[in-house]
Amino acid sequence: MPKVEFLFDFGSPNAYLSHLVVPTIEKRFALRVDYVPILLGGVFKLTNNRSPAETNAGIKNKPQYLRLETERFLRKHMIKTFKWNPFFPVNTLTVMRGAIAAQQIGIFERYVDAIFHHMWAEPKKLDDPDVLRTAMTASGLPVNGLLELLQTPAIKEALMAQTQRAVDRGTFGVPTFFVEGAIFFGKDGLRDVEEEIDRVREKGIGSDGA
Amino acid sequence: MPKVEFLFDFGSPNAYLSHLVVPTIEKRFALRVDYVPILLGGVFKLTNNRSPAETNAGIKNKPQYLRLETERFLRKHMIKTFKWNPFFPVNTLTVMRGAIAAQQIGIFERYVDAIFHHMWAEPKKLDDPDVLRTAMTASGLPVNGLLELLQTPAIKEALMAQTQRAVDRGTFGVPTFFVEGAIFFGKDGLRDVEEEIDRVREKGIGSDGA
Repeated sequence: MPKVEFLFDFGSPNAYLSHLVVPTIEKRFALRVDYVPILLGGVFKLTNNRSPAETNAGIKNKPQYLRLETERFLRKHMIKTFKWNPFFPVNTLTVMRGAIAAQQIGIFERYVDAIFHHMWAEPKKLDDPDVLRTAMTASGLPVNGLLELLQTPAIKEALMAQTQRAVDRGTFGVPTFFVEGAIFFGKDGLRDVEEEIDRVREKGIGSDGA
Repeated sequence: MPKVEFLFDFGSPNAYLSHLVVPTIEKRFALRVDYVPILLGGVFKLTNNRSPAETNAGIKNKPQYLRLETERFLRKHMIKTFKWNPFFPVNTLTVMRGAIAAQQIGIFERYVDAIFHHMWAEPKKLDDPDVLRTAMTASGLPVNGLLELLQTPAIKEALMAQTQRAVDRGTFGVPTFFVEGAIFFGKDGLRDVEEEIDRVREKGIGSDGA
């Protein structure tokens, strides 16, 4: 089975929507997708890229089209649990560090589900420390342990290193997927990811020769 | 059969690549795709949008990813006749007016094939009048007739009206497709176009309720 990676930041609605579809892919191919937390703000600084919300502001028709694409994606995957976060853009530095901390103490999956939920299903201002604390408590996460651990230099450095490595591999935004060495961008890249897994399984090599 | 439209400008490489795939869709569904010439520069002015070449300049990794996507598209559709135009961006005002003129004198298909060929298969500086004249002659097009007709006010106005109408319907770039009222953008939108034709044939109504 090829190695499949999903690079994400909780602040991206398209990363959340991809997260909801990943289980279907895992089931279909009987594999596990590796979640890789990265800091989107860091990616933007390192690549000189900006968010679609910024670059599409003031352009006629394009934002409407992107909304339409999202509606089509929701319909196609029968997603009922998506609500635009009224506090967007939410600063995700703390929650992304938290993801690394959660990995270290073995509660990564629960943490990822919970934070995505509080960002895009029942959206909250998660860059407000009190709001974050309440949300974590509601989801049964070990709040004090996490908040203490995520402030340690090792965690901070790990997130930055992972972000730098993602950029070194060709990342310029999220969601980004890797199937072995082949990179795919965006929630619509999920279709290509499935095709690529099929190809790699059949031929034992990535389509880009990776 | 649903009405399927393909809005294009010869200056867009992704419009050319879509043009090469349209026959497969026409064959698969036994329908004709209506080609609608519009002026991309006009769309950009009307929507405040800019070309990817401009907006992605200076961004790390993203232009490389877009090139990779093009390579994957060429591989997937086994396209051998694509060469980046070294004179890009080529001003397409004359050749787009020519498309309207070609429609009026009943040589639209031949004209479209020829101009796309001279832009992206054996690329030339088609905004140079001498180069354009030579290319048209080589393709057996009625050069004098076309060049005279395309300068008439009726043709100029028809192109602008078609461009304005495209923007009124939600267009912000090319290639853009409509399946009945549903809009799809980009060469990768072709997959959605096929799914949408399937849906409309089965249910008799567009997925967006169009």
